Amino acid sequence: MNKRDQLYEGKAKRVYESDDPEILIVSYKDDATAFDGKKKGTIKGKGAINNRMTNHFMKIIENQGVPTHFLEELNDRETAVKRVRIVPLEVIVRNISAGHFASRYGVEEGLVFDEPVVEYSYKNDELHDPLINDDHAVALKLASREELALIRAYALKINEILKAALLEVGVTLVDFKLEFGKTSDGTLVLADEISPDTCRFWDRETGEKLDKDRFRRDLGGVEDAYLEMRLRLLGE
Amino acid sequence: MNKRDQLYEGKAKRVYESDDPEILIVSYKDDATAFDGKKKGTIKGKGAINNRMTNHFMKIIENQGVPTHFLEELNDRETAVKRVRIVPLEVIVRNISAGHFASRYGVEEGLVFDEPVVEYSYKNDELHDPLINDDHAVALKLASREELALIRAYALKINEILKAALLEVGVTLVDFKLEFGKTSDGTLVLADEISPDTCRFWDRETGEKLDKDRFRRDLGGVEDAYLEMRLRLLGE
Repeated sequence: MNKRDQLYEGKAKRVYESDDPEILIVSYKDDATAFDGKKKGTIKGKGAINNRMTNHFMKIIENQGVPTHFLEELNDRETAVKRVRIVPLEVIVRNISAGHFASRYGVEEGLVFDEPVVEYSYKNDELHDPLINDDHAVALKLASREELALIRAYALKINEILKAALLEVGVTLVDFKLEFGKTSDGTLVLADEISPDTCRFWDRETGEKLDKDRFRRDLGGVEDAYLEMRLRLLGE
Repeated sequence: MNKRDQLYEGKAKRVYESDDPEILIVSYKDDATAFDGKKKGTIKGKGAINNRMTNHFMKIIENQGVPTHFLEELNDRETAVKRVRIVPLEVIVRNISAGHFASRYGVEEGLVFDEPVVEYSYKNDELHDPLINDDHAVALKLASREELALIRAYALKINEILKAALLEVGVTLVDFKLEFGKTSDGTLVLADEISPDTCRFWDRETGEKLDKDRFRRDLGGVEDAYLEMRLRLLGE
């Protein structure tokens, strides 16, 4: 599988074309950003960890019946994925209050919800990814009602799958962000990544944060948190 | 019906207890605010117009099967209403893009939606009334799923009722804000007001704004717009 033209460079990944028009190659970077891009830095080894961890989760999710874009891990940092048109929504699932939920609604972090909360942000850097509801997304023609219903069902199922996998390694899944895309035949699939960049992981015993909040909030031990999550999930 | 202790003073209304613990008296003020209270002013005669117009709409809505808090108009500015516990959500229905929708999602004003958009803001001055979705509202215990479903159904029905009433007088209903409350026996009813303060009204022929946007945007002719809406709807 050869990398050809770079299609896109995001904050944490580059995406390349391959020899096959239906297959793209994702390359994970060590670059980290936070607070709408205002904070920038590097987390050594992050790209390789996020690549391996994302693929680990994608395989579990695919095996349990939710289609994903994953095809094949090519090397430490690079993975072949199905080419998709990304639905321009960040799909956030929350089990416990934290981050924007806590600040937006004036509640403390750590409130355990009776049932998971699903929310969407409109992926639009210029508008700073505003919160958006189903009616808005339909009015703006970002997705159909049927697609939103499927996205919600998939997101809730993925939450159950991830919670169970993380429980086994002593980690509480606080919240996470997903992105979905549509393949050329119109199939909706999970895309993007699932990693400490896109999830909040808290140690079940100590409550220690094992995710990008260590970088966002200058808590120190950023690399160690990523390594710890790799060790627990991948045993290496 | 005697006014007793003042219970509450809002930006545009005062609420008093009456001799009956189940009945409150609302008194409409001429005070106007905009932009989260940062802009303040007075619109001469507004209180009387909004009182009369709200009651006019409440009667139509009640007659068409949506319960309201309306009981009896007492005088020009004052109305007796059922005492309710307000559900802390601003319920906004949009038929055409304008205001926060246009700015939040980066679209022009005037886009006609294929179907109405319903959105909720969490009524909380300190947090600046943030946008909130159903899952959030349930997680924060602001309303139950069943209450939210009923609120949505009522809001969409009220939209149809108001659109039809306004069409007859040459006015397009762009968007509007509702509040709901629960009476002591747990019945969900429409509360608050329906007026040029809480709706966007555009003349169907000319597109002229006949609502509080004239005040917000310093367009001039604020009092005339309120008088024009009173004349068209109440014939006086």
